[in-house]
Amino acid sequence: MKRFSLNQATTRHWPMPDLVAGCVRAGVTGVGLWRENVQEYGVERSAALVRDAGLTVTSLCRGGFFQEPTWWDENRRAIDEAAALGAGTLVLVSGGLPPGSRDIDAARAHVGTAIGTLVPYALEAGVRLAIEPLHPMFSSDRCVVSTLKQALDLAAPYPHRAVGVAIDTYHLWWDDTVWEQIARAGREQRIACFQVADWLTPLPAGVLLGRGLPGTGCVELRRFREAVDAAGYAGPIEVEVFAEDVWSRPGDEVLAEALAGYRDHVAGPG
Amino acid sequence: MKRFSLNQATTRHWPMPDLVAGCVRAGVTGVGLWRENVQEYGVERSAALVRDAGLTVTSLCRGGFFQEPTWWDENRRAIDEAAALGAGTLVLVSGGLPPGSRDIDAARAHVGTAIGTLVPYALEAGVRLAIEPLHPMFSSDRCVVSTLKQALDLAAPYPHRAVGVAIDTYHLWWDDTVWEQIARAGREQRIACFQVADWLTPLPAGVLLGRGLPGTGCVELRRFREAVDAAGYAGPIEVEVFAEDVWSRPGDEVLAEALAGYRDHVAGPG
Repeated sequence: MKRFSLNQATTRHWPMPDLVAGCVRAGVTGVGLWRENVQEYGVERSAALVRDAGLTVTSLCRGGFFQEPTWWDENRRAIDEAAALGAGTLVLVSGGLPPGSRDIDAARAHVGTAIGTLVPYALEAGVRLAIEPLHPMFSSDRCVVSTLKQALDLAAPYPHRAVGVAIDTYHLWWDDTVWEQIARAGREQRIACFQVADWLTPLPAGVLLGRGLPGTGCVELRRFREAVDAAGYAGPIEVEVFAEDVWSRPGDEVLAEALAGYRDHVAGPG
Repeated sequence: MKRFSLNQATTRHWPMPDLVAGCVRAGVTGVGLWRENVQEYGVERSAALVRDAGLTVTSLCRGGFFQEPTWWDENRRAIDEAAALGAGTLVLVSGGLPPGSRDIDAARAHVGTAIGTLVPYALEAGVRLAIEPLHPMFSSDRCVVSTLKQALDLAAPYPHRAVGVAIDTYHLWWDDTVWEQIARAGREQRIACFQVADWLTPLPAGVLLGRGLPGTGCVELRRFREAVDAAGYAGPIEVEVFAEDVWSRPGDEVLAEALAGYRDHVAGPG
């Protein structure tokens, strides 16, 4: 259980102090935080709250969205916030195609260039950028980075302590090349973040909020955990689930189910 | 315009005789048919109708769904129907995971084995099987074959005149390896079917019925057409769009828009 971390997106409506108290009660030592929740509660106040509770901030979500005109300022702000929270990792979701564009190659190339310009600032702040590939159903409107290979290729020009990747089972489970790419990510020392969620169908309209707690769907979660372990990753494992039905339930109850799903479907031998 | 073919799924509720008459009126010489529509009108009757109108049946959709207990009988029936219609190509959608299964590797391997058992029957009938990769958002419940590379690898053990692949822009546009795989498909003489539809967001619930007529979305359709041409494919180009809003409109109107979209976004130089 030492590696378990609750990503705040799983219990989206749980107020920050309740989330922190709930984690402490459950013996959870890591949390992944989201910028909007942190900003709402206050960056310094959030930092003090988690620090005083003895929690580690395993990642901050999220920077990226490089097709927005404000990406440069916005991402430096995100890096500052990660540093203030003591989060070693800032997850980057690249954003989709610019309005009216059909040029996905250009959008992907721009993501690489944009990340490069952030590297000195991130290194200075001691924050590692984690490029997250999202499921191809988000390629046009949320994230043009769709596979782990693409994320690793985008990270390759930069030092591994500055730029890594985020591996999320929900986004990558369908890809039969993911296993060799996880091994490569290990060799290249790029695994900065590991998140688990399960795949459920039918997908809801908009396809954002249909994920499942670990064990409720069809993803080989333990195989992923064993693969990142075999690649040399020994860091936190975040449960990150976006789902309306999960969000509608009490935080303590969801956390207990996330822990049980983690124990039965992610941790330990198969 | 000679290569344009109207896939029946685009005008789903257009009765068979109206569809055929509408194609003749519009100067369209090819149609892609669907088994349920053909069965409803009658296989022999449909065959006579299209033959007498001088239309070519460019493909029959669809066989596959190899996780169903009835797949063997069902696919032989589909081959028989394709032969009766004079359709040289039967499109195969593989089906998803068996109920309760998390073993996508096994499901993919089973698809390959199942197709192999159909090869002699298909050769005998003079029908070519076309393995269609579907978008990864369908991997669990509709098609475990998610990339063109997977489809080509599954086809590889069998003669190219028995087993090819279907290339559908809607399913493959996000994949940056698709261009090299289209070239490979050409070299290996596997391109059996080429279908175009455009990608739109937000996706509707269930994600099946949110496709766009050519030119309404973000796919580089002409790049695909040029790539299959460069790979040596000179066959029909089907417009195949599943969308509730398209289905609700008169067939003639939809066909006219499909033709205009094809002319402006698929055919000719860019």
